[in-house]
Formats: sequence, structure tokens, C-alpha cells
Amino acid sequence: MNPETREKLMGVSVATLCSALFKRGLKNQTIQDVRPVRGKGRNMVGPAFTLRYMPAREDRNPMSIFRNADHPQRVAVETCPEGHVLVMDSRKDARAASAGDILITRLMVRGGAGVVTDGGFRDAMRIAELDIPAYHSRPSSPTNLTLHEAIDINVPIGCGDVAVFPGDIMVGDDDSVIVIPAEIADEIADEAVEMTAYEDFVVERVKQGETIIGLYPATREENLALFSEWRKANGR
Amino acid sequence: MNPETREKLMGVSVATLCSALFKRGLKNQTIQDVRPVRGKGRNMVGPAFTLRYMPAREDRNPMSIFRNADHPQRVAVETCPEGHVLVMDSRKDARAASAGDILITRLMVRGGAGVVTDGGFRDAMRIAELDIPAYHSRPSSPTNLTLHEAIDINVPIGCGDVAVFPGDIMVGDDDSVIVIPAEIADEIADEAVEMTAYEDFVVERVKQGETIIGLYPATREENLALFSEWRKANGR
Amino acid sequence: MNPETREKLMGVSVATLCSALFKRGLKNQTIQDVRPVRGKGRNMVGPAFTLRYMPAREDRNPMSIFRNADHPQRVAVETCPEGHVLVMDSRKDARAASAGDILITRLMVRGGAGVVTDGGFRDAMRIAELDIPAYHSRPSSPTNLTLHEAIDINVPIGCGDVAVFPGDIMVGDDDSVIVIPAEIADEIADEAVEMTAYEDFVVERVKQGETIIGLYPATREENLALFSEWRKANGR
Amino acid sequence: MNPETREKLMGVSVATLCSALFKRGLKNQTIQDVRPVRGKGRNMVGPAFTLRYMPAREDRNPMSIFRNADHPQRVAVETCPEGHVLVMDSRKDARAASAGDILITRLMVRGGAGVVTDGGFRDAMRIAELDIPAYHSRPSSPTNLTLHEAIDINVPIGCGDVAVFPGDIMVGDDDSVIVIPAEIADEIADEAVEMTAYEDFVVERVKQGETIIGLYPATREENLALFSEWRKANGR
Amino acid sequence: MNPETREKLMGVSVATLCSALFKRGLKNQTIQDVRPVRGKGRNMVGPAFTLRYMPAREDRNPMSIFRNADHPQRVAVETCPEGHVLVMDSRKDARAASAGDILITRLMVRGGAGVVTDGGFRDAMRIAELDIPAYHSRPSSPTNLTLHEAIDINVPIGCGDVAVFPGDIMVGDDDSVIVIPAEIADEIADEAVEMTAYEDFVVERVKQGETIIGLYPATREENLALFSEWRKANGR
Amino acid sequence: MNPETREKLMGVSVATLCSALFKRGLKNQTIQDVRPVRGKGRNMVGPAFTLRYMPAREDRNPMSIFRNADHPQRVAVETCPEGHVLVMDSRKDARAASAGDILITRLMVRGGAGVVTDGGFRDAMRIAELDIPAYHSRPSSPTNLTLHEAIDINVPIGCGDVAVFPGDIMVGDDDSVIVIPAEIADEIADEAVEMTAYEDFVVERVKQGETIIGLYPATREENLALFSEWRKANGR
Repeated sequence: MNPETREKLMGVSVATLCSALFKRGLKNQTIQDVRPVRGKGRNMVGPAFTLRYMPAREDRNPMSIFRNADHPQRVAVETCPEGHVLVMDSRKDARAASAGDILITRLMVRGGAGVVTDGGFRDAMRIAELDIPAYHSRPSSPTNLTLHEAIDINVPIGCGDVAVFPGDIMVGDDDSVIVIPAEIADEIADEAVEMTAYEDFVVERVKQGETIIGLYPATREENLALFSEWRKANGR
Repeated sequence: MNPETREKLMGVSVATLCSALFKRGLKNQTIQDVRPVRGKGRNMVGPAFTLRYMPAREDRNPMSIFRNADHPQRVAVETCPEGHVLVMDSRKDARAASAGDILITRLMVRGGAGVVTDGGFRDAMRIAELDIPAYHSRPSSPTNLTLHEAIDINVPIGCGDVAVFPGDIMVGDDDSVIVIPAEIADEIADEAVEMTAYEDFVVERVKQGETIIGLYPATREENLALFSEWRKANGR
Repeated sequence: MNPETREKLMGVSVATLCSALFKRGLKNQTIQDVRPVRGKGRNMVGPAFTLRYMPAREDRNPMSIFRNADHPQRVAVETCPEGHVLVMDSRKDARAASAGDILITRLMVRGGAGVVTDGGFRDAMRIAELDIPAYHSRPSSPTNLTLHEAIDINVPIGCGDVAVFPGDIMVGDDDSVIVIPAEIADEIADEAVEMTAYEDFVVERVKQGETIIGLYPATREENLALFSEWRKANGR
Repeated sequence: MNPETREKLMGVSVATLCSALFKRGLKNQTIQDVRPVRGKGRNMVGPAFTLRYMPAREDRNPMSIFRNADHPQRVAVETCPEGHVLVMDSRKDARAASAGDILITRLMVRGGAGVVTDGGFRDAMRIAELDIPAYHSRPSSPTNLTLHEAIDINVPIGCGDVAVFPGDIMVGDDDSVIVIPAEIADEIADEAVEMTAYEDFVVERVKQGETIIGLYPATREENLALFSEWRKANGR
Repeated sequence: MNPETREKLMGVSVATLCSALFKRGLKNQTIQDVRPVRGKGRNMVGPAFTLRYMPAREDRNPMSIFRNADHPQRVAVETCPEGHVLVMDSRKDARAASAGDILITRLMVRGGAGVVTDGGFRDAMRIAELDIPAYHSRPSSPTNLTLHEAIDINVPIGCGDVAVFPGDIMVGDDDSVIVIPAEIADEIADEAVEMTAYEDFVVERVKQGETIIGLYPATREENLALFSEWRKANGR
Repeated sequence: MNPETREKLMGVSVATLCSALFKRGLKNQTIQDVRPVRGKGRNMVGPAFTLRYMPAREDRNPMSIFRNADHPQRVAVETCPEGHVLVMDSRKDARAASAGDILITRLMVRGGAGVVTDGGFRDAMRIAELDIPAYHSRPSSPTNLTLHEAIDINVPIGCGDVAVFPGDIMVGDDDSVIVIPAEIADEIADEAVEMTAYEDFVVERVKQGETIIGLYPATREENLALFSEWRKANGR
């Protein structure tokens, strides 16, 4: 992905991105009911590399299946490109894990930009300590084999009721994760940077006692003028 | 599929098949929370032909998309082999339809053995009148484009929290639908026919006032002898 | 139970009983999300005989466990007294069956007045044909061993979020099932018969075009007088 | 409402109306998880007259509250204009009733065109017998006072996750209920009649063995020509 | 509200208030499934000022709608009286936001005592930093326009399945939020202060090794005597 | 319980125990949707002492019921043996509390090893400060009497969809809680210690850049040799 776009997306919130996508008629891009294992105080940004789980059938999913070097879960972790976010479709089922700390450590070492599941992670208390952003629904200790079989790598998936296509740009902050269609990521990043500047200006003004009417959104001319000055003064 | 197996599976219940699979350690083969649009009084039997839906993104799913002759939903209906059951992974989301009466009429005319979704059908009141078994969660009038995008044909899917592989044998009765792994369908059919004979014998005895203790299951020797006679007398 | 009370409860609706209990501060006596397998057009009435299920652990619940003559599920069916209703606490989990047609046939032959679970029945299509009222959440084909272990007979239980004590009077109509504490069953039956007479009078009047204001409830004196006449005329 | 629009809407399905609204960007107009108490084989059509429930507080909702002639639930039933549909916002909570057979009988006698709740009705078995379409989530015997307090009449509400404004046109068939914004009801009715004609033509053709590709939707020219002939032949 | 009552309610827990209300038959006053965005270590106390959301219809809720100075969400924030708590009925739907950090900053600056929704807040990570108590179900980044339309200000609402009337006294601690009917707020505050004194005494005694039997509640006379001494010694 | 087993279980994670149990066919031992009130950074270990709640009936559950010294909730707290974990079956209903800080303080003083409910605790903010591990679903301020009646002590129960028999070994970490059948606790502890050693070795290697293929699980011979050396070097 465009390094400038990555840089821009590091500095905006998921809420702002939501609004930018909403304006284009994309109203369902925020992954529902997924949160950081631990807030990192910085954004996760990267293209999606996907893993699809299906329900596990007992005879196909003994513990020994992991001895197979071609097991899709392992392959996904070992082939997710540097700077990408591994996104898992766990059918919103957190009763068994999507992955644990060993795999996510490996992903981190390999340069993964983050990991997202609409299920849960095991060893969440250890994943919280790692230097890689991880998002899930809740901690879940049972091995994924209990309920999930990894079946496909890098196909279009659903995650938290949102469509994720390989290469879509994933952005996560300390609240949630959003999916930006690859083809509009650059323009959305631009717009979000603009919106963020204005929002920062608004927050400053509101803290000074200004009403939001006419300010947010800017329907009073003077506010646009003041914003213009503020940008210059603040180098935004 | 083996025509004799099909014949056998027409005469047994999903409950009996569940028990036969349970004995082999397969405890999660019944599709959850799915029911006949209307009871047909006869079984649905056939190999699975699958369709996978993912969440719909607004820009990819205008009404005009159906003008595309390659749309996977349409292709699935037009390529599902005769005697097969079309099984749809709708991520258990019945807020928009998986299909409607026109497509299911087409599937019926093409010789489809049935259709199953873990979402809902639109025009359910008309589908109920068709001579093809159809199973869903509940009626759902919104077009599938609202929430579902058909993305893959004949890949392994989840349906109602059950793993479905293309070619697995689907059996539905007036209660529910079960998935029999293809490789054991013949032996499961054989066993279920045997079990059904014994269950019919048991019901007859119970209606005559017999206790279930020692009879169901048969832990008293005499019951096995009586069953043996009953089979001869009833040609079972 | 008092045969006159039974008789009275055969002729009133669950809704009316709900209102009678509400007046006494008992607002949570209707079993939630449970319905007749098939409407019988007549009430189910009888004292509760209970069975408690707990979650099943795999090693304790192989199919062979039913060979044990002391298995609580079997014992419950064989010891439920004539005229009683077998009420099962299935923890509102219908993913596996609470019972099937053979056991319920046996219960019917033994004189059971009905059967209720907050889970589901397997072979529901056959249970629907039996001459015994049966209430559940939805059809469920997997054997109970999959998720439920019968653990206690005739202890206090929860069923559909309602407290059921052994001996409480169960009443079911074509809508739902209610639990009347044993100690007030007689007075509730009396009151419900009175309320039913008035409601029948009201429906007749409303069908003739009368407003409900002042009639339901009776805040206009004349309506009480008219009701009094109506009772005489109709032998109520 | 326009009598011709009413007539047109009597002859189209909710699914067709969904599609017509979808084309205008209105994708969330079908009331979710609501169904006919009993299918009537004919549509419900009429402008919405609304009733809003809020959670009940015990001290405000004794049984005696109904003695108040101004109780909003009673007033709603007595003031709902002839030909209108009474639509209730029960916050999707069917644990207590939204109304019972006496009130709905009164509504019927007063000329109400139907009644809809996203909760449940008590006495559902009797409401099923009435000559007025009624839609709910499931039967619910407890009096509404248990959980619901009627608080507002004819204000904008939510029903089954759909916005309903007083005067919006409600249409129900044997599957579900849809809300058509009042200002576009006439044009939607026109369009739906057109669409229905084409769908009927399509079903007829599909039953004769025609593929849906190029037919549904009509991307092959010849199908439009055939449809034109069919309309003449069938007086559509 | 009475400043002394406010002062008293600052020093008691929601759990204690629950018990005081339970004794008066008010058993459903705690807002369910709502928690602090971040615990403040001090109570939120103030009269309710309410905002009602209904489901959003797409044509009525473009982003430009906020340019309208009369938009109820904005008006609510700008008119909520000082010392009041803004309580939002978001129909328990956290899939889109109820509000974000700019509006809540404005509410804080205007002297709002807190904000509660049974949906979710966007920019929750920033709201956590503000010096105003905020309670929600979970972070939710999509703009409220996606699913919610603000429709009414200061009407009776439901919030988390609890009835909230304008002026009711809201109290939140680090666990949850409770609604005290305005007319009994003073007496409940008094009683809760008394109960809190006894509970503090009990905790101290229990930490010293005392059994709870006879102490909590106080059924042994001596405990009341000891409590009396303790109050004197501790100035309670 | 065996003190060595206790010691071993203090040093392993719930995730590792899950895998050890999975290998023995026990796939459903982790209590679902339950988490620490506050992470303690150390494990909870001890045999289960159980308390069963049923739904509360209003007339049986006034506040005064606690004056009864035999109330099962109080008795459970006063009789739970030292070193045991009090496990509560609250039917996964967190709308009312399972217990509060006073009882849990008493349990702590009496030497309880921890407390688990599949409902919620009131005064959770204070329980978080106590030196006893406590696990629940979410904070819940209403007194247990609102919805729960304590009915049985030390019987088999369900907790978070898991079977718990008195004496089963409970282990909780900062993620979740698992139930080990008493009869295999020693061998599971042994195996988990072994697995933990290997996992620690793996994490170390992965952090050094090693691939997981062939390492986790160990299918390459050399990794077993390296592990053997690592154990010696690290005294494991």
C-alpha cells in the first residue's frame, strides 16, 4: 500500500473514517463487537490478508492435524506478507479460539501489522503484552479445533458482519476496526486527514466554551475563517 | 449417490441418523434452527451443492448486478446438478433473503432435490406450495442484495453451525436437516434402516403398554427375540 | 390435585391465569418461548413432576449409558405419576433434544397429562400426532446425550425462566404454559372461571359494537348489571 | 389513503415492495422477525396509526390502571381511524403481551385494517380466528402491564428495527410486513404492480422450463417482447 | 434537585440503591448491560434529561442533516440543563453510535452531570479522558445516522430495559447506573446512607473474622448494639 | 486436593489445560463468557463447591428472607471448605447479582480459593480490590433476590454451559476458568506442566525468528533435541 496513505491513516480515528465512508454510501464497514485485546495508543494500519474458518467436524480435527505443515491456519501465519493485517472469519463464534499467543508472536516477528478475528484469542493475557495490535471479541481458551476448521486463505470473507476482500485496508484504533475498500483508500485517507484537522479545531473551540451549533458541522462562515487561521497557526 | 442409499434415507428420520452419527463421534451434524418452509410428509435426500454468501457491500450490490449472467447466485441455481440439494451459507442471518420463489421454482424444474439456507426465503408463502423441499430459518422478504453477496460455488461452507462439504449427503424430514459425510453415507443408511426397524417395533410395544426399561435400548434378551419374530412377521 | 380445580382449569386460558396471578404479585409464571408441538384445541392440566438436565460431559454420556436402567431420564418417564405433567429444565438449550417420541409415547400410555421442556423434542413430527399435549421451544433432532445429562428427578427447577416446584399446577393452552403455585391453585382456578365468564360476556358485547371503555374493565355500573343478566341467560 | 393505491397494494407481495424500495435506497423497511398470527391468504393494507410502549415501572402499572378511561392502550384502540393499521412499538420484547383478543376484536369491529407489534399477542389462538390481519413475534400470555407501559399515541416509532411514521403505508402478506413512506406510496404501488406482472410472467416461463438467465432480470430482448404479448393475452 | 440528596447519592453505591428500591417493589431500575466508558472512582448524580432515538430511514438521514440547527441530537446537547444527566434511548442497539467525543465535550463544558446510552459511543477512547461520567454498552464508531434518528427530547423513554422519566434521578458508580423515581429520591437517598453505614460496619467486622449469619442482615441483637457504638466512634 | 497438583496448576494456563483435556475427548470444559472481575496475575486453583440458583418467585424472595440463617446462599458462603472455589449456577443470567462484596469478603476471610458465577456480581468495583480471584460475566447491581433463588448446595450444576461436579478442580487465569474432572486432575496437571515447558521453549524460539512449521507441534526431530537441551539449561 501507498506509504503516505499508511502514514495518514496512522493519525486518524476509526470514527472519522466511518463518516468519510458513510458519505460515499458505505455504511457497514466497521467490524461489529470486536475490540483491542489491549489498547496500544496507536493505530493498526495495513492491507487485509484473510483466513476463513468453517465449523469443525470432529473426525477432521484431532490435535494431530497440526502436524500437517500445510494446515491453513499455520500457512496463513507463515505467508501473511509483511505489513499486512491477518483478518479471520470466525463466524462471530468466540466459544473456541481463533489463534493463540505463539502464532501471533510468530506473525509479529514476521512483520505482520496486526491481527483481527470476530471470534476470540486464547492466551489473551499474553497477546496483550506483545508489540502487535490484536482485535477480538473476547478471550477464548479452547483450541480452535474445537469449533473452527481453517479452510481458505486470502479469499473474500465476512468479519463481524462486514465484507473483507484481500487487500482492503484495515485500520484499528483503541475503539474498533474498519475496512476501507482498497480502491478508495487513498482518497479516504486524504479526506480523513482533513476531517481530523477540523475536528481537532472543533474540540479546542468547544473546550473554550463554543456552541456546536454552526460549528459542527460548520454552517457559520466565521468558523471556516477561524479554522483557516487555526490551520496556519498549528501547521495543519 | 448410490440409489439404494437414497432409497434407504427416504425412509428414516433425521433423529435416527443423528444417533447413528453420534455413535461415530460426529455430534454436530444437524443444522441448527432451520425448519421446513412447509412440511412435505416425505424426506429430502441428495448430495450437497453449496453456495457461500458473504456480507454485502453497498457499491457491489445494486439491483442491476443481477443483469450479470455470471452472478454466482444465478449460476448456482442453473448448475446445481439434478438430484442435488442446494445448500446456502447465509451466516445465520435471516434479515435478508437467501433466495425467492422464482429461483427455487427454477431449481425444482431443473430436478433439484431440495434447498437449504441458514437464513430465510422471500416469497415463502409461494415456496411452500412448490413440489420441492425447502428449509430455512424464517420468511425474509428483503432481497439478498441487502445483506448477502453470493461469492463462491461448491466450496466447503458452514450452514447452521454445521460443516457442509460438497457431496455430503443432506437428509431433511419434517423436523430438520442433517449432513452425512459422503464417505460414510452408505453405512449410515444401512445402520439407520436397522435402527428404524427396531424403533418401530419399540413404538408398537410401548403402545401396547410395555415399559421402556430393557426395551429401549434392548437390554433384556427376550426383547431381541421378540424383535426377531416381529421382523419376520412384518417383512422388515 | 383437586378434580374440580382440574376441571375448572380445563376451561380457562393461560392469559386469564396470568392476569389472576399478576394481581397477587406473581408476574413471572408463564414459561417463556415455549409452544405446543401441535395445538390440541384443549388444555393441558396437571401437577408438575420435574426432571433437571445439566450440561453433558462427553465421558459420562456415551450412547451406552441408556443401557443403565437407572438413568434419570428413563426413570422420570417410568415414575411420573398418572395425571402429572413432566416438566424438564433443559437450560433453554434446544440444540439437542430433551426427549423423543418413544419416551413421550410411554409417558402417554402411563397416563401422563403432558410434557414440557424449555429445550426441544426430537421426532417432533411424530409427537405432534400423539394424544398427549407436548410443549417445547423448537424441534431438535440430536439425542439429548449431545448436550444434556439428566441429573435430578422431582427437585425445584427453572423452565423457560420460571420457577417450577414439584406439585405446582401446570396449565397449557394453544399459546403457552403457566405454572400455578400449588398452594393457591384452587383459588386461582375459581377466580379464573369468574374472569373467563366476564371476558366471554365482553367479547360478545364487543362483537355487537360496544366500546371497551367502561366495559373492560367494568367501570360502568350498567355493565355489571348486564353481565349479571347474561350469566343467568347463559348458565354461567 | 388513495383507494386505487390500496387496491394495487392488495395484489402485490411484500418481497416485491422490498425490491421497489431497495431501488430507491430504502433498504430497511421490512419489519424484522414478525409474522402473521395466522396467514389470511390476503394482504393487509392501510396507513399506520402508532402506539409507543416503554418499559413498565411496577408502581405505575397495577391491574387497576385499566380502569382509567384515558389509558393510552385503550385510547389507541378506540381512536385508530377506520382503514388504518395499529402499529405498536413493543421494543422487540415478547415476554409480555402487546394486546389481547378483546382489544383486537374491538379494533376489528371499529374497522381497523390490521394490527402489528414487534412483541407478542396474548390469546393468539383466538386472534387467529378473527377476521383482521394481526402480526407479532410469538404468542405471549402475560398482560402488557408486566413489562410494557403504553405512553404515546401516533408518534414516530420503531417496530422490528424499522422506522414507522404515522400515515406511512403498512402492507402485510403471509410472510411479513413492510412500511412504505407515505409520500411515495402511490408510485411504489404502481411500480410493484408492474413488477408483479413481470414476475408472474417469469414464473410461468420458468415452470415451462425456461432458464432464469436473461429472463430474470430481462436482459434478453426477446423476453421483453414475449412479456409484451403475455400482458395482452392475460389482460395485465 | 435537592442539593443534600445529591450529596448523599454521591456517597452510596448503585447496589445499595437497588436494594432500597427493591424493598419498595421497584425491582427493575438498574439499566442493564451498560457500563462506564472508564471508571471515574466517583459517582454520577443528576436528574434525567432524555433523548429518544428511533430507527433511521436512509432518505431522512444524510450527513447533511446535521447542518440543521434544530436537529434533536444537537438541541439535546445544547439544552440539557446544568447538573442534569443526558439519557439516551438507543433501543439497546450499539451497532451505530449514540454520540461522540465532540458532543460529550460540549455537554461537559455546559455543566452536564453525565451521559448514558444503552447503545455505544464513538471516540470512546477520547471520551474516557474527559472529566464527565459516560456510560454505554460498548464502543461504536459508526455515526448515529447509520441506524439512529434522534426524534424526541425529554419524553419518557426506555434505557437498557428500564423506564426513565424526565427528572428521575440517575446515579452511576463504577459498576452501573440506576434510575430513582423523582418523587422518592430524597427518601431513598436517606435510606441508602443508613444502609451504607451498616454495610461499612459489616465489611469491617467481616474482615475481622465475623460470620455473616446474624450480622448481615442484623438478626442478632448484639450486632445492632455494636453498630450503634461503631457509628459514634466513626462519626457516621 | 493433592498439594503438588495444586502447585502445578498454579503455573499453567487455562489454554494449555484446554488442550490437554481436548486430547482426552473433553472439549467443553471452559466456562463460556466469564472473565475475571479484575486480573490478578496469578491463577485460581481449588476444588469446586457448588451453589445452584433457580428462578426467583416473588412471594418466596422478599428482602427479609435473608434473616433466615439457613438461607442456602449464606450457608454456602459459611460452609465452603478452605481452599475450595465456590461455583454458582446462575443460569447465565446476569440481570441480577449472584453475590456481592460482603459475602465474597467473608468467603475470602474463610480461606476460599476463589468464586465463579455465570451471572454477575454486585459491588464489582469493590470485589476487584479483594485478595480473592472472582470471575463473572459482568457487573450486576440488583440483589440476587430479584431473579435468583439459591436452592441447592454442592450438587452437580451447569456453569457457563459446562458441567461442574462438586470436587472437580477449577483453574482460572486472567483469561477464563476451566473445570478439570477430579479423577484426572493429577495427570492433567502433569501433562500441562510438560506442555507449558515446551510452549515456553517455542515462544523463545519464535521470538528468535524460528518458523512454527515443524516446531509447533514438534514434527522436526531436531526441535525435540533442542528442547531437551533447553530444559537442562533452564532447569525445566
